[in-house]
Amino acid sequence: MNTPPPAAWVDGNSGADLSVFDRGLHYGDGLFETMACLNGWPRFLGRHLERLAAGCARLQLSQPPQGLLEAQIAAALTDCPRAVLKLIVTRGAAPARGYAASVGAPPTHILLRYPWPPEDARAHEEGVRVRLGALRLGENPLLAGMKHLNRLEQVLARQEWSDPQIAEALLFSSSGALIAGTMSNVFLVHAGTLATPRLDRCGVAGIMRAVVGGLAGECGIDFQERRLEAADLQQAQEIFLTNALIGIRPVREVAGRALAIGPLTRRLQQALAPLLGGAPDCPA
Amino acid sequence: MNTPPPAAWVDGNSGADLSVFDRGLHYGDGLFETMACLNGWPRFLGRHLERLAAGCARLQLSQPPQGLLEAQIAAALTDCPRAVLKLIVTRGAAPARGYAASVGAPPTHILLRYPWPPEDARAHEEGVRVRLGALRLGENPLLAGMKHLNRLEQVLARQEWSDPQIAEALLFSSSGALIAGTMSNVFLVHAGTLATPRLDRCGVAGIMRAVVGGLAGECGIDFQERRLEAADLQQAQEIFLTNALIGIRPVREVAGRALAIGPLTRRLQQALAPLLGGAPDCPA
Repeated sequence: MNTPPPAAWVDGNSGADLSVFDRGLHYGDGLFETMACLNGWPRFLGRHLERLAAGCARLQLSQPPQGLLEAQIAAALTDCPRAVLKLIVTRGAAPARGYAASVGAPPTHILLRYPWPPEDARAHEEGVRVRLGALRLGENPLLAGMKHLNRLEQVLARQEWSDPQIAEALLFSSSGALIAGTMSNVFLVHAGTLATPRLDRCGVAGIMRAVVGGLAGECGIDFQERRLEAADLQQAQEIFLTNALIGIRPVREVAGRALAIGPLTRRLQQALAPLLGGAPDCPA
Repeated sequence: MNTPPPAAWVDGNSGADLSVFDRGLHYGDGLFETMACLNGWPRFLGRHLERLAAGCARLQLSQPPQGLLEAQIAAALTDCPRAVLKLIVTRGAAPARGYAASVGAPPTHILLRYPWPPEDARAHEEGVRVRLGALRLGENPLLAGMKHLNRLEQVLARQEWSDPQIAEALLFSSSGALIAGTMSNVFLVHAGTLATPRLDRCGVAGIMRAVVGGLAGECGIDFQERRLEAADLQQAQEIFLTNALIGIRPVREVAGRALAIGPLTRRLQQALAPLLGGAPDCPA
């Protein structure tokens, strides 16, 4: 089966060209969302657009109208109902140099459609192997939680390994807090309690992280969002990763330590499955 | 006198379009140099290209050949010998999603020519007013010193003020070290000793910072590159800013405290003047 090449729209117009004066390029001055799309519509679109709006407010970035975005998303998925959509919003092109931006400058929004990756049911069932990253994430509360375009730390962390058997690296912050994977959030289970790192100093507050946190509450699972450190990771009995595409992915090995895929992970996978619309996960 | 609009070349071809799949946009996965050009050639080009090469090595980024860059720079300045050139090098376009990059992928290089800004001799003579930024810079030694494209912190710091009488904000790091301005490096004078912040955890190691550090040695001035904190700033008798465009710019007021423009600042301005090729500075 052939997969179609990525398609692109800039400000609603089909095409893959962006102005070299765009502040998204110059400064990473923008945000993005990566959305799993099934049956012609993104999973959790409401949550994605809410997070985007919150990020725009924090960056004082004008936001493209939600109705416009929804119409363009629908159009992008018409002839390709199963795809990954990446939506990028930047502060737009600036003809003058300098960090200062014109207030209310029209943003640029870019929609990219990637083929749905091949299913990886084994990772979903048997879990993945994970390493510990050497890079320590810088801490800045003003950027924490946002899915902004400054992602050099993730690029460098991903350069640390090339072994295809390793699915992800877990990263700590400069102050020693466990934060996340390079492209996923992380959950730990210890003595029946589920925990995920607080993301008030760095990290991206993932959509699937919020969905799973909500599910934990519905399932009556004791759940905490708090500062976690290396000792918490070492003592964890179950570990899993989340992101908008992979759903819940169990970890079966972390830094050489084997882990069983435990009951809490399985219970949350089962609770999540109906919300994923028939496609439990896909490799990110 | 009319100033020409910005001109752009992408990989040596005249034009202002960049692929929306470029990793410079997606991740800020790249570097830049801003160069003051006089008489058809960038000031300190050798130093700019050295810093670019060092940054490419740290990011494992393929570098465009230096001879090619020099030829394109010369061509860009042929009909506009006095200009500001911004050179951006990114890891290029990636058709697939994800932080992992193909090793040896061809980089994209972008050359932008901006008009030389109107002279501002008064700032050079009388000094500028500076505020303290509220934003604290995140610390990551793997990114420190490089002029990379992740500049959201500078964008947010620049959003903190709109008073045109304030020229710059001085920024501290998350651990409380004085680092730099949003677009300049900073030097302090105390008891005849010149000091500038060590940039091993964050900040950009500016070309003019290195030039001025070298001049201090030649002038027999006691000069230290070390950790500086708020108390050092409060006790400073002279303060000045540097960048590749403005040269040395004295600070006459910091957070409401008036400062005299002292003998060491003037001495370094005099020593620097011959190296600036007749244009002492320009507003950045």
